[in-house]
Amino acid sequence: VTAYLLAFALELADAARAETLSRWRTAEGERDKGGARGYDPVTEADLAAECAIRALIRERHPDHGIAGEEYAPHQGAGRFEWSLDPVDGTRAFVCGLPGWTTLIALLDEGEPVLGLIDTPRLDERYLGWPGGARVDVGADSEPLRTSGCTRLTDARFATTDPYLFDGEERAAFERLRARARLTRYGFDAYAYARLAAGSIDLVVESGLKPHDFNALVPVIRGAGGFVGDWQGGNDLAPGRIVAAATKELFDEAVEAIGGKI
Amino acid sequence: VTAYLLAFALELADAARAETLSRWRTAEGERDKGGARGYDPVTEADLAAECAIRALIRERHPDHGIAGEEYAPHQGAGRFEWSLDPVDGTRAFVCGLPGWTTLIALLDEGEPVLGLIDTPRLDERYLGWPGGARVDVGADSEPLRTSGCTRLTDARFATTDPYLFDGEERAAFERLRARARLTRYGFDAYAYARLAAGSIDLVVESGLKPHDFNALVPVIRGAGGFVGDWQGGNDLAPGRIVAAATKELFDEAVEAIGGKI
Repeated sequence: VTAYLLAFALELADAARAETLSRWRTAEGERDKGGARGYDPVTEADLAAECAIRALIRERHPDHGIAGEEYAPHQGAGRFEWSLDPVDGTRAFVCGLPGWTTLIALLDEGEPVLGLIDTPRLDERYLGWPGGARVDVGADSEPLRTSGCTRLTDARFATTDPYLFDGEERAAFERLRARARLTRYGFDAYAYARLAAGSIDLVVESGLKPHDFNALVPVIRGAGGFVGDWQGGNDLAPGRIVAAATKELFDEAVEAIGGKI
Repeated sequence: VTAYLLAFALELADAARAETLSRWRTAEGERDKGGARGYDPVTEADLAAECAIRALIRERHPDHGIAGEEYAPHQGAGRFEWSLDPVDGTRAFVCGLPGWTTLIALLDEGEPVLGLIDTPRLDERYLGWPGGARVDVGADSEPLRTSGCTRLTDARFATTDPYLFDGEERAAFERLRARARLTRYGFDAYAYARLAAGSIDLVVESGLKPHDFNALVPVIRGAGGFVGDWQGGNDLAPGRIVAAATKELFDEAVEAIGGKI
């Protein structure tokens, strides 16, 4: 990953911010795309931000593919594809809560090699690439490093919503919750950003889509953390994610989840 | 409540911020006061912030009483008492998450007549008094007004942690969750601030202490919202709180909770 591509990803995030921040906490722009499938909020901010990012990519890199949450995929001509979630945490967004993010990942032959978690309201940008990760807060920039936490009993554990787990998943979650030092809810992708920064030790979730997790992987791995699936492998496609500060904690979480899930 | 007292409350919040923000996201200052009672984090930030607020009150208003979360109460000589929670959301604080607050209330003969919810990381200050409420964001100030939401099925519902509800309480919570439009977790006092601002419609919690709820009441009521207990009355002392954007929504939430609780 080149310095140019990192700078380009930040430029994409700037373009998205202009569309999201101006609509946050305004009456404008909440719509319901769920219909018969139930409540599924999408905001004008989502749509406008993805549109702005796509326009920049197609202008500068017409050969790059694009897969975003809100629009149909654009097939590229080469090895690179961008994976976009313009507003992750739409429910937080519509509740006027500050933890929503913009997720931007660059895949090289299907592998995420650049990840950016941008939090517009907080002006914090978490960037990861093979071998490194950093956070920009305003004009300051510093390296990201996960905590040294190796035991579940010491872990600050986060998940977005316990009611997203059903049946066996819920039982596995409750085993983790019972053993962890504390559990926090409600933060979507921002929890993984804080894991990379060392203030959360473990995140376990299910039901994630590629546009939800692609940007997280380079940030967590670049900060020295471990991310994999609920069996301890590397198959993120089913959307069951374990992210941990250390390999030891990752292994203990996988063991507590139980191989049968 | 005079303009002087509102300005004094903001001065107290300034003094607390100097102690909290400088320690947030640093290794310093996390301690465990729970001991045999289980995990109960308290930070140096809590202790230092309450100490700074107390010093200012005792210097300017030695006749005012003080009841804070961290230190022994100070008996006043008159009708006024301050109720303080220097860091509400200690778990969020130790996880590096931005929603923690400083809660400052002034009681007049036991009734909260001034409430301040300060969010240092976000630079948002929610102030309420009999008949009015406002939020200061940076140098801007605007009136607070709850949403017009009158039905549970339309409501954005928030609670800090579903595992804080036991037995019958949990069943009541799940009835609310099943009927609400969406449910968010993890925000402690900040959820009530956003209710006053109109971006959350309903908050239901249990187990709150006076220093947790005293500051919320003038902000919610000053913004036109309703706050009471799980039976629909006004007895907040047991710590079971229903806060709603409108009287209609408050009544429907109380009905869903069920009088037998």
